[in-house]
Amino acid sequence: MAKDFSTRAENYSDWYNELVNRADLAETSAVRGCMVIKPYGYAIWEKMQAVLDRKFKETGHQNAYFPLFIPKSFFSREADHVEGFAKECAVVTHYRLKANEDGKGVSVDPAARLEEELIVRPTSETIIWNTYKNWIQSYRDLPILVNQWANVVRWEMRTRLFLRTAEFLWQEGHTAHATEEEAQAEARKMLDVYADFAENYMAMPVIKGVKTENERFAGALQTYCIEAMMQDGKALQAGTSHFLGQNFAKAFDVTFLNKENKLEYVWASSWGVSTRLMGALIMTHSDDHGLVLPPKLAPLQVAIVPIYKNKEQLERISEAARSIKAGLEAKGISVKYDDNDNQKPGWKFTEYEFKGVPVRIAIGPRDMENGSAEICRRDTLEKSICPQGELVPAVESLLEDIQRNLFERALKHRQENTVKVDSWEDFKVQIEQGKFLLAHWDGTTETELKIKEETKATIRAIPFDVQEEEGKCVYSGKPSHRRVIFAKSY
Amino acid sequence: MAKDFSTRAENYSDWYNELVNRADLAETSAVRGCMVIKPYGYAIWEKMQAVLDRKFKETGHQNAYFPLFIPKSFFSREADHVEGFAKECAVVTHYRLKANEDGKGVSVDPAARLEEELIVRPTSETIIWNTYKNWIQSYRDLPILVNQWANVVRWEMRTRLFLRTAEFLWQEGHTAHATEEEAQAEARKMLDVYADFAENYMAMPVIKGVKTENERFAGALQTYCIEAMMQDGKALQAGTSHFLGQNFAKAFDVTFLNKENKLEYVWASSWGVSTRLMGALIMTHSDDHGLVLPPKLAPLQVAIVPIYKNKEQLERISEAARSIKAGLEAKGISVKYDDNDNQKPGWKFTEYEFKGVPVRIAIGPRDMENGSAEICRRDTLEKSICPQGELVPAVESLLEDIQRNLFERALKHRQENTVKVDSWEDFKVQIEQGKFLLAHWDGTTETELKIKEETKATIRAIPFDVQEEEGKCVYSGKPSHRRVIFAKSY
Repeated sequence: MAKDFSTRAENYSDWYNELVNRADLAETSAVRGCMVIKPYGYAIWEKMQAVLDRKFKETGHQNAYFPLFIPKSFFSREADHVEGFAKECAVVTHYRLKANEDGKGVSVDPAARLEEELIVRPTSETIIWNTYKNWIQSYRDLPILVNQWANVVRWEMRTRLFLRTAEFLWQEGHTAHATEEEAQAEARKMLDVYADFAENYMAMPVIKGVKTENERFAGALQTYCIEAMMQDGKALQAGTSHFLGQNFAKAFDVTFLNKENKLEYVWASSWGVSTRLMGALIMTHSDDHGLVLPPKLAPLQVAIVPIYKNKEQLERISEAARSIKAGLEAKGISVKYDDNDNQKPGWKFTEYEFKGVPVRIAIGPRDMENGSAEICRRDTLEKSICPQGELVPAVESLLEDIQRNLFERALKHRQENTVKVDSWEDFKVQIEQGKFLLAHWDGTTETELKIKEETKATIRAIPFDVQEEEGKCVYSGKPSHRRVIFAKSY
Repeated sequence: MAKDFSTRAENYSDWYNELVNRADLAETSAVRGCMVIKPYGYAIWEKMQAVLDRKFKETGHQNAYFPLFIPKSFFSREADHVEGFAKECAVVTHYRLKANEDGKGVSVDPAARLEEELIVRPTSETIIWNTYKNWIQSYRDLPILVNQWANVVRWEMRTRLFLRTAEFLWQEGHTAHATEEEAQAEARKMLDVYADFAENYMAMPVIKGVKTENERFAGALQTYCIEAMMQDGKALQAGTSHFLGQNFAKAFDVTFLNKENKLEYVWASSWGVSTRLMGALIMTHSDDHGLVLPPKLAPLQVAIVPIYKNKEQLERISEAARSIKAGLEAKGISVKYDDNDNQKPGWKFTEYEFKGVPVRIAIGPRDMENGSAEICRRDTLEKSICPQGELVPAVESLLEDIQRNLFERALKHRQENTVKVDSWEDFKVQIEQGKFLLAHWDGTTETELKIKEETKATIRAIPFDVQEEEGKCVYSGKPSHRRVIFAKSY
């Protein structure tokens, strides 16, 4: 394990922060709450973007770009939305700086005050629905299936790299439909896209479900979510999709002539995932040796390290390594052969481990004699010896195995830490042990808030896959028809 | 030609604005100076991004992401930079809104005033060099070759879609080097990358050169540029790269231990292209029938339109069309078969023409009898008949031919409109006729500014490829050693 690096057991929060920094993923910046995403972290985000973008396009969506700024008055248009978003946000009030008269520094020019303040978008429903108004006249203009990759800003007092930052990167889909059914189906479809991405690329099992009214997106009639369990047992909301009904169409007066030639308000959905997924990825798989990445999202999948005492040995190893590298690359696997002479093999091993490179291959003089190489898999740190001639298929199948193992390990962890609770006493004990609790709830916001107040646990989701089941609310004792998931969360 | 659509001859400016709107590329938004990039326009930008991003990575660069906001004081650090950029910019002064007491609308919360105002980045040298300070200790940490895809804001009073907008999208490369030579070489290398992209993908010939001191980027020691001629004879600066010397390193105190173990300031370059390239692309190739796109950047390369009177005819044509489509797609060509029954073929022809789809294939009953199809190329609007069995290779080679023809046409246009002028009288006449003028200049900012004042012409570049040649300044009569390019510009 890297020196001076906190373990998860010692301090999970320190472990996370140190890992993000030392694996060169991100760092804090000179601007309060804003992060710098470093090249290695950004390379992982780019891999995520590429997969998601492909999935969005395969499901018929197109990308577009809408303004960074939103006129202040737009926030007041949709009553619930204003409650949720017109609060902690960055407000642009002026459009000019001028040099100070003493020649030192610059000041805001008081003469350059905007007539109406502009808000740096915390989310884009308002500006987009104001735009859709001009795009939609008839049912023939529908559906509109648009996505935007963008930065957004929500002023946060307590920030944490990737998990909660004032500025973050995300995608936001905003769709317009002729019928309620279509808009609902879209919201559900995109939740499935997110769940598929989380499970099959991030190797992160998720629970699909619907949010309670209290946890809903401001302005939505229904919010669907995928929730994942981190290694400390806390929940992380990894993606949401919203059925917005006709709320934004009404707020921005977006109507269309339907097939019967009658004027109707347009139906809407929106959906998004953000750089928060980076935090989820890190906290799902990484260990006390550093980052662990699923092969499908690893910028570098294989590192080959030569072990040698002299130039002649290095030359022989390099020849073999380059041939292995070429063989792996021909299979679409990304490989680095690290023959940098400034660092010792041990240092390199630690470094690639810390960066979460899924497979490390080491080749030394003894290996050359035997025509073999040492393979180390990052997920379990197990080592094995493999004939050089069989390395390509071995690594190919190992990458698949790591991808599968990471998912299964995380699923097992969640299953082992998810418990049914039927008494308030048990609830309080289990929640402190970092569990997901399947508990009956009476369906009221009042109870939900009291439970949150007493335990910090929130209802993460009403899962789609729970059975109807008669029971009593774990807090109020009132009747309940199904269990919901309670957890502490990020 | 589309009805109600201005021609270039009638009004070039109206033609441009109408084209951008009607081809669904972009539109103005509710926020002054900010544009909405519509899906079709964004799809072209995505194609540009993909090519450029690949080229950046092939030349060893990595992407990263830095904060949207820059503390006001950062602008005062580099003396020239503050002059150039700390002027017309969006200033964030507050971080909270609150509901009005009358329950209507929201106001800026005066209690939530930032201690130091934040500037929405107009460019990121300052925040990035403040970050690099912590990344660089020794020569071993160099070079840093980082690029960022981002939105930036420069408050503009007179805006024009793609060409000049308050918010625009761009990439900005920011590199750090151990030596002056390396930083200079990087700036020149990236200019070559831009020129290659402009000429071989955008089919837009460019002049490579260096800017005069007066036209230099604020904070640079040298600004290199690629300049293109639009169809109205005006110049458009399509990309710039800057050798920044040690200016930003000194401003942000970024030093490194060199190989001799001595502390030295780091050398820098920066380089960028933006959504302005969309404007350049449009104005280089498009005509009075709408957009014309080079095949390499066209989101849709081939549209197939069936012409039929009854269902039976349509079925036969569809069968042939789908087979043609599959054949083309197997060659990596993007194809749409448009059998939408709501629109007539004539409407579709006009539409695909207007959207700049490089090749249109029409198949009617007569074609089916003859086993042929009609091909129409967008660049010249020439039609030809081709046996269906030969369509795939024919279209493949036609796309290449269109790409080449667009470049050659634009190059011919520039050559025909570039003139050597040796008298001030001739200068004033020729500049009004929309020419690029190759003229002698005495090298002083004073003369440059007087010429600009009298004619609106600026020095676009001191081209790399002009010969040394003794002459007299076209304005002052003072001695000059080489000609420079004067033009009016966007």
